[in-house]
Amino acid sequence: MQSHIPKGYKFAVAAAGFKKWSRNDLGLIVSEQPALAAAMFTTNVFSAAPVQVGQELLSQHNWFRAIMYNAGQANASTGESGVQQCRRTLTVAAGALGLQPEEILPGSTGVIGAPFDISRWEKVAPKLAANLGKSGPEDFARSIMTTDSFHKMAWAEARLAGGTVRLMGMAKGAGMICPNMATMLAVLLCDAKVDSTMWRKLVAEATELTFNRVTVDGDTSTNDTLYALANGASGVAATEADAAALKQALVEVLGKLAYMLVQDGEGATKVMHIHVHGAQSVEEAEKVARTIGHSPLVKTAMYGQDANWGRITAALGRSGVSFNRDDVVLTVCGVELFKNNLPCIYEDDPLLIEALKGRDIPIDLKIGTGGYNYTLLASDLTHKYVDINADYRT
Amino acid sequence: MQSHIPKGYKFAVAAAGFKKWSRNDLGLIVSEQPALAAAMFTTNVFSAAPVQVGQELLSQHNWFRAIMYNAGQANASTGESGVQQCRRTLTVAAGALGLQPEEILPGSTGVIGAPFDISRWEKVAPKLAANLGKSGPEDFARSIMTTDSFHKMAWAEARLAGGTVRLMGMAKGAGMICPNMATMLAVLLCDAKVDSTMWRKLVAEATELTFNRVTVDGDTSTNDTLYALANGASGVAATEADAAALKQALVEVLGKLAYMLVQDGEGATKVMHIHVHGAQSVEEAEKVARTIGHSPLVKTAMYGQDANWGRITAALGRSGVSFNRDDVVLTVCGVELFKNNLPCIYEDDPLLIEALKGRDIPIDLKIGTGGYNYTLLASDLTHKYVDINADYRT
Repeated sequence: MQSHIPKGYKFAVAAAGFKKWSRNDLGLIVSEQPALAAAMFTTNVFSAAPVQVGQELLSQHNWFRAIMYNAGQANASTGESGVQQCRRTLTVAAGALGLQPEEILPGSTGVIGAPFDISRWEKVAPKLAANLGKSGPEDFARSIMTTDSFHKMAWAEARLAGGTVRLMGMAKGAGMICPNMATMLAVLLCDAKVDSTMWRKLVAEATELTFNRVTVDGDTSTNDTLYALANGASGVAATEADAAALKQALVEVLGKLAYMLVQDGEGATKVMHIHVHGAQSVEEAEKVARTIGHSPLVKTAMYGQDANWGRITAALGRSGVSFNRDDVVLTVCGVELFKNNLPCIYEDDPLLIEALKGRDIPIDLKIGTGGYNYTLLASDLTHKYVDINADYRT
Repeated sequence: MQSHIPKGYKFAVAAAGFKKWSRNDLGLIVSEQPALAAAMFTTNVFSAAPVQVGQELLSQHNWFRAIMYNAGQANASTGESGVQQCRRTLTVAAGALGLQPEEILPGSTGVIGAPFDISRWEKVAPKLAANLGKSGPEDFARSIMTTDSFHKMAWAEARLAGGTVRLMGMAKGAGMICPNMATMLAVLLCDAKVDSTMWRKLVAEATELTFNRVTVDGDTSTNDTLYALANGASGVAATEADAAALKQALVEVLGKLAYMLVQDGEGATKVMHIHVHGAQSVEEAEKVARTIGHSPLVKTAMYGQDANWGRITAALGRSGVSFNRDDVVLTVCGVELFKNNLPCIYEDDPLLIEALKGRDIPIDLKIGTGGYNYTLLASDLTHKYVDINADYRT
């Protein structure tokens, strides 16, 4: 993996003990030289303190040296004192690292409303700074996990006119996932030298095609944050002509992370690939895909490995999108189930029964003759989801 | 109960064996004289055959003699042959009863897409007709149950200027419940003599205030049907001056049934009474209430008896409704939890812990200073919900 790591970044983790765990829960990434930053944040009105602070910093300048994330302390709905304490963490970390506080971008994940424990931050900061360079991206990816069952990393290379650049992403899920601008916590590191406007545009476009098209439970978090750094350490400058190649690499990395978020959705056993096409607009295709992807009845049927397609067409029927019933064609795992306003088969297809045992379930729904489509990845709804969420705080 | 039954109606049930059960699954109500009918149907585009037939009949005339409901055969997504077979059931039943087919209103509930079993209908029709008058409304209410754990009935009296009239309702839930015009299957019987325009208006208004304000899983069924008959058998005519009293009785009966739908929501242990107020419009209040009532994280927290209020405010924050964070006040079971953009308490209140053990959970959310409000009843999300729905067809 070493060769995949974008140049010029160092990593550190430390155990602050924010919850009753004995693991690293604080992760730091430092770029050796100032890195151009683009960011995507939650659209939830109750955005957390670190989201507010990150937004403020990015409104002031584009160049940053570090990203600091923690698990176990959301610092959400903590009011003005939460914002002050988030700023204080940046000051404390900056002091230990020899940086300026405004060069560090913050992010947090945990339970909403819990008071912020600044004393643990102050205690652990020197250790975090001392650890810089002793950890790798995998350690960082592990440090930000909460209910995640595995750490999430992805990487890609982009061959630009001036040479090859590297991109690497780390993210955490796994509940309160229905990103609307970005997922809960994610980082994208790149060693290209990029123009600020182009970088922001590419990151936004790639996010729209990846993180914004996955859902676990339809609950958009208060803390969703993606920071994307480009530090130029490869010495390769991306020109306008390289935009497509760079975007492709961004979509590859963020797409893999987005898939992993659904794969590791709380209690999830399935990844539905809901592809809606033939729509009159992207918005209509999206509305249908989300109605299906959020339907508890569809999600439990998938968990039960039951091709109960009537729940899918019923979700379409209540989506609020207008369509002609005779145009609808539903195909699950490659088997046509509904067409011409009638079921195609009455007995379950043996091939379908077998295919539903797999993890990835392609659901292809044609709703008309329009030229627009949308693909959403969605998890199923399981006993374990209820276990995790009926008992999260205790 | 006898005295509560509206005058002039007879009941019959029979066991057609539509599923592998040995219980009555076919229910019939006959009015001794023609009854004025009002109806509310699902808004799902994939409406079932009996919904289409019922709509057609009601577009042709207002007076009916009978309602025939069945469980175990949805007759949904069965195409033109499903419609033909629904008509055939009316012809068969009418023949046995000495009625005209167009005097009977049909309704069905079961799995979408399963082929319709007309032979069982033809076989059971004479028995159903022979049973008329041998059953009561309770038998009818039981015959239409599917995943319901109890039968649902409610009644009320309305004291009109000319005398007292009786109203009685029967309904079945318990999944695919997010009525948008009416619940899955419901009947309202009344023995008042009412003007057609007034009856339709009152039934529509009462439905909007009751069935349309409950949700189990957000999935609007393809078969939702409410038929409301007024046969005049009491000899009491309702005048314009009686409209308020009659509406109140309608709301009482339909409201009790709507509550029972949520109480008996698949796997449900809680009824959340989500009251959103201070909104700029009813639509905004409704949007917030539904976002909360459909949130899997809120629903699982309630199941876990966990006052995890951050999930409620986060749902508000992503609802798409604009509001001022400082205006928001959240009160659960009478305990203020969030105000002035800050938590009110950091340790769980012992009174709240106790209150969350109860079935009814009042969630009161003020979102501003506007004059509009909305109340939604919603169930929780439990292991049993997943049990039932991951394994419904097998």
